[in-house]
Parts: sequence; C-alpha cells; structure tokens
Amino acid sequence: MSLKTNNICLTAYPKGLPTPEHFEMTTTDVSPAGDGEITVRNHWMSVDPYMRGRMSGIKTYIEPFQIGEPLEGGAIGEVTHSGHKDFKVGDWVMTMLGWREMFTANVEDMRKVMLQKVDPNMLPAQAYLGVAGMPGLTAYAGLYKVAEFQPGETVLVSGAAGAVGSTVCQLAKADGATVIGIAGTDAKCKWLVAHGCDSAINYKTAENAANMTKAIRNAAPGGIDVYFENVGGIMLEAALNNMKIFGRMAVCGMISAYNDEAPVPGPSNLVQIVGKSLKVQGFIVSNYSKYALEYFAKLGPLMAAGKLVQQETVLEGLDKAPEAFLRLFSGDKQGKMLVKIT
Amino acid sequence: MSLKTNNICLTAYPKGLPTPEHFEMTTTDVSPAGDGEITVRNHWMSVDPYMRGRMSGIKTYIEPFQIGEPLEGGAIGEVTHSGHKDFKVGDWVMTMLGWREMFTANVEDMRKVMLQKVDPNMLPAQAYLGVAGMPGLTAYAGLYKVAEFQPGETVLVSGAAGAVGSTVCQLAKADGATVIGIAGTDAKCKWLVAHGCDSAINYKTAENAANMTKAIRNAAPGGIDVYFENVGGIMLEAALNNMKIFGRMAVCGMISAYNDEAPVPGPSNLVQIVGKSLKVQGFIVSNYSKYALEYFAKLGPLMAAGKLVQQETVLEGLDKAPEAFLRLFSGDKQGKMLVKIT
Repeated sequence: MSLKTNNICLTAYPKGLPTPEHFEMTTTDVSPAGDGEITVRNHWMSVDPYMRGRMSGIKTYIEPFQIGEPLEGGAIGEVTHSGHKDFKVGDWVMTMLGWREMFTANVEDMRKVMLQKVDPNMLPAQAYLGVAGMPGLTAYAGLYKVAEFQPGETVLVSGAAGAVGSTVCQLAKADGATVIGIAGTDAKCKWLVAHGCDSAINYKTAENAANMTKAIRNAAPGGIDVYFENVGGIMLEAALNNMKIFGRMAVCGMISAYNDEAPVPGPSNLVQIVGKSLKVQGFIVSNYSKYALEYFAKLGPLMAAGKLVQQETVLEGLDKAPEAFLRLFSGDKQGKMLVKIT
Repeated sequence: MSLKTNNICLTAYPKGLPTPEHFEMTTTDVSPAGDGEITVRNHWMSVDPYMRGRMSGIKTYIEPFQIGEPLEGGAIGEVTHSGHKDFKVGDWVMTMLGWREMFTANVEDMRKVMLQKVDPNMLPAQAYLGVAGMPGLTAYAGLYKVAEFQPGETVLVSGAAGAVGSTVCQLAKADGATVIGIAGTDAKCKWLVAHGCDSAINYKTAENAANMTKAIRNAAPGGIDVYFENVGGIMLEAALNNMKIFGRMAVCGMISAYNDEAPVPGPSNLVQIVGKSLKVQGFIVSNYSKYALEYFAKLGPLMAAGKLVQQETVLEGLDKAPEAFLRLFSGDKQGKMLVKIT
C-alpha cells in the first residue's frame, strides 16, 4: 500500500513580514505505521503567532523550523493505522505534527512533545486547538498564575479578539472582573462587548500611545490591576500609564514586534515599573501544563453555560495554511484561526 | 530662648537636570519641644536618587516636595529637647526631616513616616543612612524578596558602586554568587572588584547597548540569573540580552531617566521578556520594612567579618547638600553620598 501526503514547508527564513513565497507545498510518501508507531490523518490544524519565532532560524526556548521540512504546530487527526497498543484505528489525537495531511510517527517520540487523545463527541474537534487547548491554557495560566488575577479586579487585554485574548476576557468576566479589550476592527470590538468585555477599544482609531492612554483611562478611570499583553509597542506604553500601584502584567506575546526587520525602540515610560511597584512577567504555556486539569475543570461549566465560547475563522484545505498564518499578522480574521484539512 | 535653623528649600520644580539655582537656603525659628514633641539637631543627612521624583511636582507613590518648604530625606540627629516620655535629651534618632540643621516635630506625626532610635556606639551614625538603613534594606529586599536570588546564582548590578548597588554586590557575593558590577569610572570598578564583584564593567567605555551586551557576555558567558536595576536605558537593553531563561530583574530605579526632559524610547528587545520567561518587578523599599530585622540579622555578622563595608563620600555643611544631591547624577562620588551637617 502506498500513502502520499502533502506538506507545507518553509523555503527560506523570512526577514520582516513573511509572504506566500516563503512557503511551498511538497508531496512525500507515508509508510503505514510499524511497530510502536501510529499513522494519523489530520482534520484540523492551528496557526499561532508564536510560530513566527520558529521561522527566524534562531534557537529560542524552542528549536527553529528547518528549511524544506514540514512545519510543525497543533493538529487534530484520526488514527488510520496503529502499531501501538494504546491507540486503535478511529481514535482522535492532538499532536504537534500539523502543516501536513498525514503522517506516521513513533508514539514515544511524540509523547515527549505532545500526544493526547481527544473526544470529538464531547467538544467540536477544533476546540482542542483553541479554547480547550493550548491557547485556552495560555489564557488561564497567564491570567491566574502569572498575573495572579483576583476576582473583581480590572483587567486590560490587548489582542483581545484573538484565540488567547478572547478566552482571557471571558474567564475574567466570569470571575466578576471589569474587562477592557483592545482589538483592531469595530467588528471585533462589537464581538468582545457581547462576550465578556465591559468595553472595547479599536486601536486603529486610537493611533498613538497618548490617545490609547486616554481611551483606556476613559474605560477604566480607576486604573488597571492586570494587563494581559499580546501586542507590545504603544499598547504596552498606554497600559503602563494606566496601571495601578502593585499592578501585574502577564506578557504572553508582543506580536507587534515579531516581524520587525530592524530594532524598534520600546516604551519611554518603563520607569513606572518602579514608581508603581509593577510586576511584568513573561511566560510560555509549556511551563504551565500542570494546570491543565485545573483549567479544564473551570472550562467545562463555563462552556456549558455559554459563558466561554470560541469564535473561529476557518480556511479549508492545507494549501490555505500559509494564508491563514499570514492573516494572524494582518488581523484579517476573527477569533481562533484554523485550517480544516479534510 | 530663641533657636534658629538653616534649611534647604526648592525654588522651582526643575525640568531636566536640576542646577544649584533650584535650591536656596532659608533661616527659620525653631520653638523648643512642647508637649508630645522633640527637638533634634541633625548631624548627618542623606541624599538619594529617589528624591528627584519628589522634585517634579507630581504625586507618585509619595507626595511631591513643596516649593519654599524645607526638603525631606533621611537624617540622623540628637535630641536636644524632649516633651515626650519615649525620648530623652542625648538620644540619637533617624527621621525623614533632613535638609535642615534643626527641627521640632510631633513624635506621633513622625512615627507615621519614620522615627527610630539609633545607637552611634554600635555603628558609625551615618551607617544608619546607608548600609544599615534604607539603602541597605533596599538592597536586601530587592535581591532576596523581589528577585528571589538563590545562593550561587549569577548576579548583574547596575549603579553597582552606589549605596544600594554596592550592598547588593557584597550580599550576593557573601552567598556565593558570581557578581558583575556596572559603574561609571575605573576607580569605582576597582573598588567593586575589591568588594564583592568578580568583575566590573565601566559603562563609559562600553558606550552603547551592543558593546555593553558583549562586555556582560564576556563577564558571564553562561548568562545572568538576577539583574538588579538601578539605571535603565542601554543597561536594561544589554541586561535583557544576557538574561537566562527564568531570570529575574529587581527594578529599584532607573536613574538614567530621572532627568529626561522629553520621553526617551526604551529598549527595543523587550520581547525577550516572553521568550525567556523573565520576571521584571519594580519595588519601593517602604513596602518591605517587615524584613528589616531579618536583614539586620544578616548584616551584623557580615559587617563584623568585613564582608560588608560602606564606602562613603562626605561633604561638610548643610550648604553643600544641593551639590551632594547633584553629584548623584554626575556620578562624581564613590559609594554612599552623605552630608555632615555639624
């Protein structure tokens, strides 16, 4: 039996904003699962901002992608062949072997990175790539463990309409917070106000840090206890201006900087970190996996009650994966960006 | 009986670097202590970088100084008249009523801010303004409580030759750290290497963030666990480039920014806060006063063993106080800057 898969590979490490030319589709053979292996047909894959870091050719907390090799990322698929006693044909699994239609891989090797059975009858399969997966746990860990959010506090979220940000907003609201979201279109802001935000600011109409500072002040005259940072730049500067004494910032990402070709200066008001006794803490979700069960215990009732919903933008076909990824940076999507592979 | 005191007052809120014209000496009457009051003759006063913030006319975590009123700050003096049962003539006290030769004040009012008996036989009186006072506790709290320093880690200190920085270096070294100090003259660097630092970098020869980054990397090829920040600007940028994953920064001050007339952009590499999971935390010593006894228990044996020494620059006469203060920013001093009043 001969199996074939299409894969998306990088043609070169992009400098600045990646373009479609940085990606190519390849076709390779897939051997059916041998001993200790499983073969998986992917149904869904995730694109996430952190992947940009792995496209720079530089080792950070994780290895860079290799030119000409299939990219990697969260994916949900179905087992089609099994050579391992823990998996049977028809099982659904979450792996980090996205950006391809099909693969065969060693179970123990995958377990070192990510291999988890999921139940598509309990939740829509793609939810495991969003609110019930890595972005959801990122939101939970950042809000509760890093920023030490306390019920009833005032929370500011940048990138609020994204997969992580929208989960932060809804979790905080469910715990009685006053929530202010920042997003890039009026449509996103409208969605946010309908889903957990007391108010939402369209940063494209605020234009600069001074206007952002005022817009946040209008939304939260008493100041901000917790800032959940996904964006950086003028968002960070405006947030600093509005933090309360002893405020905390969970720094999840700074998407505004990911495609900078030359260094772009940071905020001029970092000295407020001293005067306001702020804690500014970066984090990577993989260091918080021990809180997954705690998060899922919170997630279930909130989803059942309709207090935590996943908004999605879905592109169909593996060939659309580069476009899906690039739209993370243009902002041309709503909620969790997904690719439906088959 | 008529008592007179000279005082140093602010003539205007400075924009940018203060000059001698921003200060004036006034002479006022002092009534001998009435009921509930004490009269104190100051012998020593402290000048500290944080005072610049109170000269801006803006309320931060503390009220601004008032134009035409005596400035305030740490001082050590002797009780000359007492109307309060807890104090007798000849007692030595530490108060926040510096920048004046003499004063009468209500004991309960002073206790709300700072009023503490000190023993000039146990330590030189001026040590209570340095290593055994607020700067010393600042060093201890920042290193152990904010940055969560663990014995044996690698510690980088900016403003290392100052009152706080030099204490941080010596405390860390006593706990087996590898310590790298950053200071502004070769003489300061030489003192640092003789007092706790494994190596010292003269930032004036490093010139820019790229050179500072290299100088730190040469001194600590394995990276930095703890950065004790007194300076900001290119020091912060270079420190970020050298932090280890899970590194911590105690942000005590950013003296490079205190006299900025216009906003100066911050470092371009803040995104490393995410990739390295850094904690960057500002603090104000007054929120750590509960650790004073714990610190003094550590301080005593270290001072007795000569492992923690206070380097001082002393100017004589209250009229020299403005000059002493301004030399904090020019860097023209070694160690703790003090004014001997009488």
